[in-house]
Amino acid sequence: MAWAPDDERGWPGHVELLDQTRLPHETVVLRLSDVLEIRDAIRRLAVRGAPVIGITAAFGLVAGVQAHTGSAAAFAARLAHVDERLRTSRPTAVNLGWALDRCRAAITGCREPGSAVDRLLAEAHAIRAEDEAACAAMGRHALPLLRSGGCYLTHCNTGRLVAAGIGTAFGVFVSGQHAGLDLTVYAGEVRPLLQGSRLTAFELRERGIPGYLLPDGAAGALLQSGRIEGVFVGADRIAANGDTANKIGTYAIAELARAGGVPFHVVAPTSTIDPTLSDGSLIPIEQRPADEVLTFRGTSVGPDGFAVWNPAFDVTPARLISGIVTERGIARAPFGPALASHLSS
Amino acid sequence: MAWAPDDERGWPGHVELLDQTRLPHETVVLRLSDVLEIRDAIRRLAVRGAPVIGITAAFGLVAGVQAHTGSAAAFAARLAHVDERLRTSRPTAVNLGWALDRCRAAITGCREPGSAVDRLLAEAHAIRAEDEAACAAMGRHALPLLRSGGCYLTHCNTGRLVAAGIGTAFGVFVSGQHAGLDLTVYAGEVRPLLQGSRLTAFELRERGIPGYLLPDGAAGALLQSGRIEGVFVGADRIAANGDTANKIGTYAIAELARAGGVPFHVVAPTSTIDPTLSDGSLIPIEQRPADEVLTFRGTSVGPDGFAVWNPAFDVTPARLISGIVTERGIARAPFGPALASHLSS
Repeated sequence: MAWAPDDERGWPGHVELLDQTRLPHETVVLRLSDVLEIRDAIRRLAVRGAPVIGITAAFGLVAGVQAHTGSAAAFAARLAHVDERLRTSRPTAVNLGWALDRCRAAITGCREPGSAVDRLLAEAHAIRAEDEAACAAMGRHALPLLRSGGCYLTHCNTGRLVAAGIGTAFGVFVSGQHAGLDLTVYAGEVRPLLQGSRLTAFELRERGIPGYLLPDGAAGALLQSGRIEGVFVGADRIAANGDTANKIGTYAIAELARAGGVPFHVVAPTSTIDPTLSDGSLIPIEQRPADEVLTFRGTSVGPDGFAVWNPAFDVTPARLISGIVTERGIARAPFGPALASHLSS
Repeated sequence: MAWAPDDERGWPGHVELLDQTRLPHETVVLRLSDVLEIRDAIRRLAVRGAPVIGITAAFGLVAGVQAHTGSAAAFAARLAHVDERLRTSRPTAVNLGWALDRCRAAITGCREPGSAVDRLLAEAHAIRAEDEAACAAMGRHALPLLRSGGCYLTHCNTGRLVAAGIGTAFGVFVSGQHAGLDLTVYAGEVRPLLQGSRLTAFELRERGIPGYLLPDGAAGALLQSGRIEGVFVGADRIAANGDTANKIGTYAIAELARAGGVPFHVVAPTSTIDPTLSDGSLIPIEQRPADEVLTFRGTSVGPDGFAVWNPAFDVTPARLISGIVTERGIARAPFGPALASHLSS
């Protein structure tokens, strides 16, 4: 876990983040206590992945308020300021607001700033520990969806970099490996930022899970070929009806999986469910800068200033989803009541 | 036309090719007379696109045999050798074998090597001139499929670099522009070799047609968004039943266009139709090297030696195709008899 202190109960006074933009070729650990720097790290995807964005926001809140314990009024003002800075850093992953809401709820009625900081830190640790447990539970619940000898497709990066534990969708493969299953994992490279090539392929190699990389455009032909038995992806926000926002390209894969008769599963903790949005059309989708597409690792590949359509996420309609695996089990259609029951249990 | 001499009736003794792998940042013209060099230029995609591969093979045949006019037997042996070298350079585009067959048919019964070379050259010029006319005709036939103010999606590069005229699918947009229509063209970047960013985006800018680039994975969300009125793509080989091999990613776009209720048209000259193959499952699909995906312009982006699934093409089933535009008109389902009539008219 690179995004928080090694000592599970301790607090070094800053957030520690492995800068994911520098991977795989450089291992750079950021130690940030300034809230604007933490916000910038989230914005430029130095830290990315819905669960870990939530965890980072929780520890970031502690970092941002720890020195402002003079008066209750000053503390409250600072808390509101830091909350706003972190909450608006990226729009799509709901875990960000969820974690901040949860931390603030933990200090409701607490009038003493010093003890509020202690409670915020305890809550951040709890969020992290629960995420680790949730990853393990999702892996267990998804095991019956795997077959030894099977080939599976995933998209983007959903392993140990994005969560406190083994990850979400990637954690399913890790769980299968631990259970002794022989799995092969196909992973799209995920343009524009290549989370598949830069992160997932390295994590597959590190874990000794056989895999293939493919250009994102090849997913259709792969799912048409009959060699894939299932798709597992993570999520950035799940609406109350099961519509799911995830990395751009996910909706295409879901539609193509349906066409190829391949089951499509979303794997995400309940903290990724947003019960306040009735359906996916209400999920805010972040547009990313044109340069991500017009350049490739600093080299220009398209005409300077050309217009680019570069949404970071798309929305997969619930009707294309075979099941949503959370730490509470596998929700199936109709997703509305199934997800509500996961949230309340 | 960078791939053949400027003088339409002349012959400089070599094939001239604009090296497409160096575009957009460098303009390198290759002047090749050695058949192995011509084959290599086709293999490494210095020249790419089904129509121009056929034209290159026709002129390459002339280049390969022109110095071997000593005896009829020696000429015949050389012709067979050069034919085999060119024909096997890439497997999917049928225009390659089509052009070679047509050139050889043009010298049937010709016993004098010198005059056979003249006839081969005349046939190569004819193939080129007919391709130019075919592009213009396809553009005319497709005009009723366009609406001023409309947004269209294309994939890969299908303009003046791949044909003798205005191109195939791209030529439709040029034809619309000439007819005074206001069009906006969305183009995928087309990993791994970025023909969209490196070639199509530059050609759009050069022609003054407004456009957007997008990561290939975003095509699903774009077609789901309702802003696209039609898809136009080229083809590398069309089976007798209309199943169409084209650049990897095309099948996905076709399936997603169907899901989004967007018409999907293939634009290709009849030389791209292979009446000997009953359906698309028989079209040979080229697998390209892993390094195309694992590196970018020499920079590594994935783990060294990681396995890659990198087919150059996929096959779109005829049932997803709204129409196939050839120089003879628009073929519609059932494609079998429609394409047969285009071939025989």
